[in-house]
Amino acid sequence: MKVKYSLLHQEEKTNARYGIIETNYGTYETPMFMPVGTRATVKGLTPEQVKETKAGICLANTYHLWLRPGENIIDHAGGLHRFMNYDGPILTDSGGFQVFSLAKNKKKDITEEGVQFKSHIDGQKLLLTPEKSIEIQNKLDSDIAMSFDECPPASATHEYLKNSIERTLRWARRGKQVHKNPNQSLFGIVQGGPYKDLRKYSAIETVKMDFDGYSIGGVANDGESKEDMYKAIDYSIPYLPKDKIRYLMGVGDPLDIIEGVIRGVDIFDCVLPTRIARHGQAFTRRGKINLHNAKFIKDLTPVDLECDCYTCRNYTKSYIRHLITTEEMLGGTLLSIHNIRFLIKLTEELRESIKNNNILEYRQKFIEQYNKQDA
Amino acid sequence: MKVKYSLLHQEEKTNARYGIIETNYGTYETPMFMPVGTRATVKGLTPEQVKETKAGICLANTYHLWLRPGENIIDHAGGLHRFMNYDGPILTDSGGFQVFSLAKNKKKDITEEGVQFKSHIDGQKLLLTPEKSIEIQNKLDSDIAMSFDECPPASATHEYLKNSIERTLRWARRGKQVHKNPNQSLFGIVQGGPYKDLRKYSAIETVKMDFDGYSIGGVANDGESKEDMYKAIDYSIPYLPKDKIRYLMGVGDPLDIIEGVIRGVDIFDCVLPTRIARHGQAFTRRGKINLHNAKFIKDLTPVDLECDCYTCRNYTKSYIRHLITTEEMLGGTLLSIHNIRFLIKLTEELRESIKNNNILEYRQKFIEQYNKQDA
Repeated sequence: MKVKYSLLHQEEKTNARYGIIETNYGTYETPMFMPVGTRATVKGLTPEQVKETKAGICLANTYHLWLRPGENIIDHAGGLHRFMNYDGPILTDSGGFQVFSLAKNKKKDITEEGVQFKSHIDGQKLLLTPEKSIEIQNKLDSDIAMSFDECPPASATHEYLKNSIERTLRWARRGKQVHKNPNQSLFGIVQGGPYKDLRKYSAIETVKMDFDGYSIGGVANDGESKEDMYKAIDYSIPYLPKDKIRYLMGVGDPLDIIEGVIRGVDIFDCVLPTRIARHGQAFTRRGKINLHNAKFIKDLTPVDLECDCYTCRNYTKSYIRHLITTEEMLGGTLLSIHNIRFLIKLTEELRESIKNNNILEYRQKFIEQYNKQDA
Repeated sequence: MKVKYSLLHQEEKTNARYGIIETNYGTYETPMFMPVGTRATVKGLTPEQVKETKAGICLANTYHLWLRPGENIIDHAGGLHRFMNYDGPILTDSGGFQVFSLAKNKKKDITEEGVQFKSHIDGQKLLLTPEKSIEIQNKLDSDIAMSFDECPPASATHEYLKNSIERTLRWARRGKQVHKNPNQSLFGIVQGGPYKDLRKYSAIETVKMDFDGYSIGGVANDGESKEDMYKAIDYSIPYLPKDKIRYLMGVGDPLDIIEGVIRGVDIFDCVLPTRIARHGQAFTRRGKINLHNAKFIKDLTPVDLECDCYTCRNYTKSYIRHLITTEEMLGGTLLSIHNIRFLIKLTEELRESIKNNNILEYRQKFIEQYNKQDA
């Protein structure tokens, strides 16, 4: 089946909304944070550990899986769920973002046909097109596929973006034409940088194609400001249908999630919680902390006293600091579990605050505590 | 309490024996394989994952924990069990082996007092003595501590070993004198290389000191032959009391475990299963396989069809090969779980064969299958 979104409550003072999304692998509440399993594995976690964070949809990267092990290997295994032993819903991106950010020497050749670039692994010349992206995602058999779009840099001009949006719309149309999997939803992507007219145009034209959901792209490329991110959301949301899911791509900072939810976003994904975990950093209610810090050497309290995750229930900062400073794998695993759970718990609380029509008060309280930064 | 060994069945045709060991953290059957948690973590595994392999005693390395985070930090946390969240029995080694194998530039100065060497981490000058080793292990609060011994290289002459054994006996005596923890057992170590007279002498003199258990050392240093290992066991075992546990240090090859058990050994430890796992290798009933091998790319069978571990119940060779070739942490974790379980299941079967008085037949069948090596 295609995913089905139902709006259950609209917060009274903001655009924030509470809803549910029905998928092939269960029904989940939104707003939701989706952990990223780049190469068909959330780095260092078993699927059971991912599930214990109460994760719903999990992400996988089309670009990485296309290169290794190749979509045909995953197809042969019966699709991504069976390949990686994950029986929750999976969303795959289009590969576009990685082509633009990971291509060897960052060189790529954008034509009407698609994007030509060299593999970051072996320098092999590759061509990714809208059709190819959908074909790969079909074989991966994710529950939600994304349209192939151009991801222009934050520095792109209005003029550049105008042309880029037109091309992305043509690519979206081509991708939709070849997308035939009845069990896979296909989402369209709104681009347009921080420009009101471009976001409006991109949103309206994308929605005309009637996708199963919509994402707001171009907010987490390479240095967009927070202000530009909020503009991108604010200028896109009014033109997106209320009965479809809204997805803000690549955003996972706690404060950004709160701002996104307030502006009407339903789902988020980001490598941030797992990436910073492997570098010893953890989210806490009082800001981010770095477990390398010597002050934690004898600290027998959990990473975050207000957290209910496996890590915080069982381990001290002293032990995790030991694991991180000695580069033991378990350190990254334990902090990844915590950081993912932190963001998921945040969305749980945001859902409550939406139902209680007090998300603005929630934001204020959260920020006050978060900025205490006793780290 | 001290560990208590009870011999429950002596195999009829060999020295193999089935028994139980009672510890502060439960009673376990022997022969047993003990996974190694070098720095208070079995690399890449949570304690729950370790337990799921049906592991009993788990090892930790005194040398590594002495250097980082330091025994006082672990003492402050309430001992190793609480520090690492492991509620099974823990055995710590004396640090001797690492001093001899890891010291910077392999240079060390052995005196009557102890061993002076430079830290492999920062080159700091350090002195490890029998008293210091016991003092550290007391603070770590392991269930079983080991005497501090000299670990001479495989190339050591009879004359060198004779003097070395005398010193090791004096060190054992000094260690025993300062060991006061009533909840920690202390094991003595038999040395003597492949020499009958030296092993006999070392065993008899060590047993005179009345330790809580005995280990056979000097078999896994740096290139002892299998024959020398068997000699070391055969020449030591006759002089070890039947009512105390016998521990073969650093041995974890499946065939070596079988040979050790047949010769009367009760417990084994080794980093082998987890180390080779991180390099993509797995034990199977048909020999070791390397998951890097391209022939596994589409292989949808588990690592070992006869295995009941978490990994083999849930993952294919194809997926694990993908994780290993892309250097994803989960690959090492899954193979570590499998390899540990493989050795533990082997000891379960050895226990059955002892009870059935057919361990020699078991060995023959195991070797025939193991040597098929379809890898």
